[in-house]
Amino acid sequence: MQIVIIGSGNVAYHMAKAFVLNSIPLAQIFGRNETELKKISEELKVPFSTENLKDADVYIICVSDNSIEAVSKIITKKDCLVTHTSGSLSKEILAGEYRKSSLYPLQTFSKSKELDYSNIPFFVEADNEEDKKILFELASKISKRVMESTHEKRKYIHLTAVFACNFVNHLFSRAKEISDSQEIPFDYFLPLINETVEKIYEIEPKSAQTGPAVRNDKRILELHEQLLKDESLQIYKTMNHSIQKMYNL
Amino acid sequence: MQIVIIGSGNVAYHMAKAFVLNSIPLAQIFGRNETELKKISEELKVPFSTENLKDADVYIICVSDNSIEAVSKIITKKDCLVTHTSGSLSKEILAGEYRKSSLYPLQTFSKSKELDYSNIPFFVEADNEEDKKILFELASKISKRVMESTHEKRKYIHLTAVFACNFVNHLFSRAKEISDSQEIPFDYFLPLINETVEKIYEIEPKSAQTGPAVRNDKRILELHEQLLKDESLQIYKTMNHSIQKMYNL
Repeated sequence: MQIVIIGSGNVAYHMAKAFVLNSIPLAQIFGRNETELKKISEELKVPFSTENLKDADVYIICVSDNSIEAVSKIITKKDCLVTHTSGSLSKEILAGEYRKSSLYPLQTFSKSKELDYSNIPFFVEADNEEDKKILFELASKISKRVMESTHEKRKYIHLTAVFACNFVNHLFSRAKEISDSQEIPFDYFLPLINETVEKIYEIEPKSAQTGPAVRNDKRILELHEQLLKDESLQIYKTMNHSIQKMYNL
Repeated sequence: MQIVIIGSGNVAYHMAKAFVLNSIPLAQIFGRNETELKKISEELKVPFSTENLKDADVYIICVSDNSIEAVSKIITKKDCLVTHTSGSLSKEILAGEYRKSSLYPLQTFSKSKELDYSNIPFFVEADNEEDKKILFELASKISKRVMESTHEKRKYIHLTAVFACNFVNHLFSRAKEISDSQEIPFDYFLPLINETVEKIYEIEPKSAQTGPAVRNDKRILELHEQLLKDESLQIYKTMNHSIQKMYNL
């Protein structure tokens, strides 16, 4: 089976790497960014092109949601399976006469960070049993957690991930901004951050909540608001309001 | 040296346990909640009382910030060192004629969750070198990370912790609320959450940001807003606004 990955960003890089590490040969990595493609191509020993899309059985489009539709039009072949890796878009966004599908890896990808692919949940959606089987077999070589998902469900999986990952990372950014401003090493907070995550393996997050908002400690909440401004103050107020609503305070 | 811990909540329990596990005898655990004190007393083999505060050299007040002042008045002895564990309050909140100090453990404590105390950063503040030395020696038996901190700096350490821990945990609660609503097991998100935290050991959180807001993907942002309501929608908007401000989008 000939497989082509389209894209040169974080997802494309890690998907390609996951395939290669699991001895699934890739026919090509195709994209616009020659510099990035060249780097991936050299590291993974996979041919790349910015111009001539190779004939293949499966095309995996790993580009940002904004570009999927445009990129999907490059594939003019009909007898092939095309899949995208978006958490939120329908497989119908793929604009061609080929068979359409979705293969969503639930993970956050940064090029410079190594990853254990075997634990990543993959969610598969396809038009027919045969295409499902192709994607299940491919993804199962990478990960032990491959599941089916409808588009409707996948949207909520992605939304949950935005809260549990993207927003959490942004809180780390804002936290570091505060500690940096006082020359407090961010390292101090790593045991706390680890424990915050370790807890949810044992306790429901709702039962694990600590801090001034859930104690309804107005003095501390006011004191903290005086130390903050702009976006961090807005986050502080919004999060505390949400905490107090959740616990009926 | 006679040491008494005052309080029966999460912090009191873990502080008492940390002392006992490190072979520092406690003269007493004192508090109002007999049921909780009895449990702690039985587990740790430390005498407790709700009525007669034992004579001691060091009193460690581990109660919520709201109650520290009132509780500190129970100690009428003058020749002793009294410390509280608040992240935000001055040691001067302690209302007695004894020597005043602060011993702030930077960690989130839940009774049902075991903890490795040796990595917890402890921040010490006292009026004189002798008192500092007492607290440093005590805390150093529990943890390898004991440091001095002014009240000013400690307030910012606590504030950073609220973002990096309390708010992160609340995001997990709201995330789980979303996944629960669609009967999506929250387990699916654990590898993603782990990776989100592992990343910050290698990459600055600001460089690790992923998701629709930092990609300025308006279609997905709008789609997500349609799936949310109330506090979760408010969080979604506030966090995305803050992300976009941070990256000048």
